[in-house]
Amino acid sequence: MKQYDILIIGAGPAGLTAGLYSARSGLKTGIVSKDIGGTSNSILMIENWPGYSGSGAELMKKFYEQVKKYDVNFIIDEVSSIENGKFDKEKDKEFIVKTKKQEFSCKSLIIATGTERKKLKIPGEVEFLGKGVSYCATCDSFFFKGKDVAVIGGSDCATTSALALSDIAKKVYLIYRGEKLKCENINEERLKKKKNVDIFYNSFPLGILGKEKVEGIDVMSQGKKKKIKVDGIFIEVGSAPLAEFTKNINLKMDDEKFIHVDENMKTSVDGIYAAGDVASGKLKQVVVSSAQGAIAAKAAYDWLSGK
Amino acid sequence: MKQYDILIIGAGPAGLTAGLYSARSGLKTGIVSKDIGGTSNSILMIENWPGYSGSGAELMKKFYEQVKKYDVNFIIDEVSSIENGKFDKEKDKEFIVKTKKQEFSCKSLIIATGTERKKLKIPGEVEFLGKGVSYCATCDSFFFKGKDVAVIGGSDCATTSALALSDIAKKVYLIYRGEKLKCENINEERLKKKKNVDIFYNSFPLGILGKEKVEGIDVMSQGKKKKIKVDGIFIEVGSAPLAEFTKNINLKMDDEKFIHVDENMKTSVDGIYAAGDVASGKLKQVVVSSAQGAIAAKAAYDWLSGK
Repeated sequence: MKQYDILIIGAGPAGLTAGLYSARSGLKTGIVSKDIGGTSNSILMIENWPGYSGSGAELMKKFYEQVKKYDVNFIIDEVSSIENGKFDKEKDKEFIVKTKKQEFSCKSLIIATGTERKKLKIPGEVEFLGKGVSYCATCDSFFFKGKDVAVIGGSDCATTSALALSDIAKKVYLIYRGEKLKCENINEERLKKKKNVDIFYNSFPLGILGKEKVEGIDVMSQGKKKKIKVDGIFIEVGSAPLAEFTKNINLKMDDEKFIHVDENMKTSVDGIYAAGDVASGKLKQVVVSSAQGAIAAKAAYDWLSGK
Repeated sequence: MKQYDILIIGAGPAGLTAGLYSARSGLKTGIVSKDIGGTSNSILMIENWPGYSGSGAELMKKFYEQVKKYDVNFIIDEVSSIENGKFDKEKDKEFIVKTKKQEFSCKSLIIATGTERKKLKIPGEVEFLGKGVSYCATCDSFFFKGKDVAVIGGSDCATTSALALSDIAKKVYLIYRGEKLKCENINEERLKKKKNVDIFYNSFPLGILGKEKVEGIDVMSQGKKKKIKVDGIFIEVGSAPLAEFTKNINLKMDDEKFIHVDENMKTSVDGIYAAGDVASGKLKQVVVSSAQGAIAAKAAYDWLSGK
């Protein structure tokens, strides 16, 4: 069983930055992740990572290339559980990280697994996945060139997707539950200037319509039922933390199941840290996740060196 | 008197990122700073800003160019005081920010003035400034090509400077008060491999020697007085927060005079936020300062919009 000083789970902005700091501190560092970049890969345009304008995928590639300069082991695999291992000495803790096929041990752990897209849980959502239903505008918008699409949600992700789609699709309907979009104002202004975008406030979808593929959507809009003809539906209704695999170690979670952390990104268990979107905290941004990765790696280093 | 929604004082990583987020939120934003980039400009090599390897000055230029895309007023001037202004309405607060020549008013304030280098306060330090004494290896190392220099300090800044100087100077003496350097391990390892670098632990300087210019330094090393012949002395003994100009508004400070902030970077005064090295917090890194700038701008926006 391969042993690490620090094992990082997840390779988005938080995990990659934690890896950078951990490796530079001279600790034996591994990163286990099912992919490189995480949900940031699906951000079409990042303009608020200081000094950079471009796609999320391109930025994550830059992060990865930098970490690769150091002695960090990347393991592409999905973690299924964490367990407390044996104690070597009185003070030395050890955690066992398991995937379906492999096991690793480590003295300290940084959880940076991020979030996954929330589902709408309405009729048609599962059946039409890949047949008009998508959770990733970056990946799928091109298929809807000249067609009509709906975007569900009002966050930064939803509005950025709607904006990008408006340059490709014929018509974009933005369907949002609330009265006011909760995205950056600059994107709200941009959206309102687009002639082919209709925003439906106080509206939510009831079901997705179609035979072989998506043909429309049933919406409750301002209290009235409405049928909208669309070819594609992009679902962007928020994210849920990916922390189910931690259940054996009983980390303290907040009300929405994000991992509770203190100002040093320490969880309720000594030696375990969490950073990025999986951790409690209000502002979910690449630059914030990245800083949290650095803070977690520094705190883990200090803990391991007995400071 | 020019009025702003948010006025940011300082244009290093924290101030520039706060400006980026503030402008993108649609608020009328100004940045008053005596320069662009702050002390980051003097970092010779940044390798731990994710996705970037290069000089601090070059990175700050990238930050600045991005902020300039938005409607942000840059005012190159030094703030001398902040005062409470009149209250427009019962709820609306107003702050007056003064420089020697100008005044501005704003509804919310982000202080991101960073730190300045600490002085050694030993004989010769003031007299030989610019005549062999320097606080900035980036700026002055070239003048010591083929010569002998001393670097005082054991932090990341000090060791990075010593490393860079070792490629230019004939001999580098690193003089540090402690028993173990407090820099990133990777830089300690690099230093130890350099044949022209001598590290003096448990050592501190007593006085700088010379007639017209620096000729040597008196050092107390492991309890013994020692004279070292050098042509240049780089002083890197830490930094003190630049917050003196806030004294009229009585912000709560921590023991070392850094501005006390909560998790949203809010100070003890409603409407005033602090971010970056001037704020309390353990990890002083570009990526952390930058995240704090984003968090402060978001918190100021929420506060102004009554959230």
